[in-house]
Amino acid sequence: MTFDDVAAAVRPVDERAARAAAEHHDHLTKPRGALGRLEDAGIRLSAIAGAVPPPVPAPATVAVFAGDHGVLDEGVSPWPREVTAQMVANFCAGGAAINVLARAADARVVVVDVGVATPIPASAPGLVARRVRRGTGNIAVEPAMTADECTAALDIGAAIADEAIAQGAAALITGDMGIGNTTPSAALIAGLTSRTPADVTGRGTGIDDATLARKVRVVERALARARAAREHTDPRALLASVGGLEIAALTGFIVAGAAAAVPVIVDGVIAAAAALVAAAITPDAVGYLFAGHLSAEPGARAALHHLGLEPLLDLNLRLGEGSGAVLALPLLQAAARILREMATFDSAGITSKQ
Amino acid sequence: MTFDDVAAAVRPVDERAARAAAEHHDHLTKPRGALGRLEDAGIRLSAIAGAVPPPVPAPATVAVFAGDHGVLDEGVSPWPREVTAQMVANFCAGGAAINVLARAADARVVVVDVGVATPIPASAPGLVARRVRRGTGNIAVEPAMTADECTAALDIGAAIADEAIAQGAAALITGDMGIGNTTPSAALIAGLTSRTPADVTGRGTGIDDATLARKVRVVERALARARAAREHTDPRALLASVGGLEIAALTGFIVAGAAAAVPVIVDGVIAAAAALVAAAITPDAVGYLFAGHLSAEPGARAALHHLGLEPLLDLNLRLGEGSGAVLALPLLQAAARILREMATFDSAGITSKQ
Repeated sequence: MTFDDVAAAVRPVDERAARAAAEHHDHLTKPRGALGRLEDAGIRLSAIAGAVPPPVPAPATVAVFAGDHGVLDEGVSPWPREVTAQMVANFCAGGAAINVLARAADARVVVVDVGVATPIPASAPGLVARRVRRGTGNIAVEPAMTADECTAALDIGAAIADEAIAQGAAALITGDMGIGNTTPSAALIAGLTSRTPADVTGRGTGIDDATLARKVRVVERALARARAAREHTDPRALLASVGGLEIAALTGFIVAGAAAAVPVIVDGVIAAAAALVAAAITPDAVGYLFAGHLSAEPGARAALHHLGLEPLLDLNLRLGEGSGAVLALPLLQAAARILREMATFDSAGITSKQ
Repeated sequence: MTFDDVAAAVRPVDERAARAAAEHHDHLTKPRGALGRLEDAGIRLSAIAGAVPPPVPAPATVAVFAGDHGVLDEGVSPWPREVTAQMVANFCAGGAAINVLARAADARVVVVDVGVATPIPASAPGLVARRVRRGTGNIAVEPAMTADECTAALDIGAAIADEAIAQGAAALITGDMGIGNTTPSAALIAGLTSRTPADVTGRGTGIDDATLARKVRVVERALARARAAREHTDPRALLASVGGLEIAALTGFIVAGAAAAVPVIVDGVIAAAAALVAAAITPDAVGYLFAGHLSAEPGARAALHHLGLEPLLDLNLRLGEGSGAVLALPLLQAAARILREMATFDSAGITSKQ
C-alpha cells in the first residue's frame, strides 16, 4: 500500500480492550498497580490488538533507513558524509550496535538505502536499495526534497513495514542512519511543537559549543525559509522542506504499522521527529507507538512530550540506529506475557487484601 | 561455604579490566559514549569478570527467599500473613509475576522458605525448605531473631548462591516474598544510612495515610530498641534485631555472588536493604552489584544512593519477588554482547570523527 492508503487506514486503538486489560491486571496475583508502567504497556498492547490478553510482540523487525543530508555543508557534524555509506555496509555485515542488540532481542534487521549520497563500500549483503536521491538539499538554503521525492520516501517506508508484517513481524522498530540527521530532526520538532530551535537542537554525536550555536542558527534559517514558502502549516510540506529522506521513510513505516495495528517502538530523536510528522498527518497513529527510550538529545524529550509518550528506558543513549527501541522490546514482550500467563487470585487460591 | 567464608573471600573488582573495557568501547563503530549507561554496564561487567570482553551473564538464577514478619501484629500491611505461604505455592506452581518474567528472560527461579510462618498450601513442587523459624519476632517490641538464627539465614543465602553458580548461573538475581517486609527494610535502611524513618518508610503494597504514620512509628520504635541494646553499630546485630529472615538470606546470597565474582542484580527496597547490610560487612561486595530498577518505595532510592548504585530501570514497580531485577537482565546481557560482538572502526573500515 502507498502512504496515502495506510494513512487512510489508521483506526483509533480499542479503548474497550484497554479497560478490560486494566481490569484483568487487578485480578492477577500482585497488589493492584504493583507492576507500574509494565501494566500500562500491557494495557496499550491490548488496545492495539483489540484483545486481552494481547499477543506477545514477537518476532520484531528493525528497519534501519539510511539517508544523507545536504545540510552537512554547514558544518553541523564532525563526521564526514561517507560514514553513512560505511555504516550501511557495517549494518549489512552485522557489526553495528543495532545488529548486536537485535540479535540479543531476537529481532530481524532490515537495512534500507533511501537516500545515501556516496557509494556503499564493497558488498552490502541484504541491503534493500531504494535510493530516492543522493542525499537531501541543504535545508539552510533550499528544500530537502521535492514533494514527489517526499511521497516516494513515505511510500518506501510504508512498503517496508507492510513487507515486514507480511513476513510475520508482530512489532516494528524504527532505526535510522544519516550523518547530520539530528539537524533536520530538530527543525521538524521545532516546526511541529511550540519550541524554539535553541530548545530542541542538541549535540548529536558530540559537537562543541561553537558548532552547536551554528547548528541552532541553521535550524532557524531552515524554518524561516519554510515559513516564507508557507510550508510550515502542512506537515507533509514541512517534511519535504526541512526533513530528510530517512525521516520521511520512517514516517511511512510508522503510519503503516499503525494501519496494520502492529505496535511500533520509536527510537530516539530522529524517530521522534518522524512520529511527530506521522501524528500531525494521522493523529490516531499515536496510539500504536511506544517510546523505547529517552534520547540524550533535547528534541527527543520535547517531541515525546508533545506526543504524550513516556519513554520506557532512560539510559543516556544517543546513538540512533534503533538501539534504544530494540532494548525496550523485552519490556513489551514481558508486559504481554504478564497478561497471558500470570495466575489470578482465584486460580491460585490466594487471599485478597483485607 | 558459610557466610563468614564468602564474606572473607570477596575481592575488589578489577579496575584494570574496567579501564580496558572503556578503552575498547572507544574503538567500536559508534560515537564515543553514545551507548550511555549500557557502556557503563559493560565496563562494570568487565571489572567483575576481570576480562574484556566479559562473558554474557546467562543463564541467570532468581532466588526468591520467603519469610514472615512478627511486626505484622502492628497493623503495618493490609495483607494477611498467610499470603506469604500462598504466594510461595504460587511461585512453585509458576503463576506469579516473577515466574512469568523469569521465563521471558530465560532465567531459572529457585524458591526458598527461610522463615514462612504458616503452612504452605498443598504441594509446592521444587520448594527449597530451609525454614529457620516460623517468622520473625515483632521488631517494634523484640528482636527479629537471635544471632544464631541470623547466621543460619545468612548461611542459607550463601549456600543457595553457591549451588546456583555450581549449576551454571552466570548472574544472580535477588527475589523476596514476605508480607510486611517493607517495614524491617525501612528500619535497616534508616539504621544504615543517615535518613530518618519518615524519609525511608513507604506505602509498600498500598496503605493509607494513617497506616503509613503507624508504620513510621513502628520503624522508630524498632530502631530505638536496637539503639538501646547497642545493636545499631554492628550491621549483623542490626540485621538480627530489626531485619528479617529473607533479608538475612538475601544478604548471604549477595555476598556469595560477589565472592564468586558473579554479577548480582538487586531488585527493590527489600534487596536494597540486604545490599546495605552486605556492603556494611564487606564493602568490596558493592562492585559486583547492579541495581535492576528504582522501586516506587522511598527507601530504595536512599539505599541505592548510599551504595552509589544507579538503577537501570525506572518503571514505578513496587512488587518485589525480583521482578524489577529480572526485567533488567536483558540490558546486562546486551551490554556484554556489545563488547563481544561489535565491529571496530578499523575492522569495519569506517572513517573516524574529523
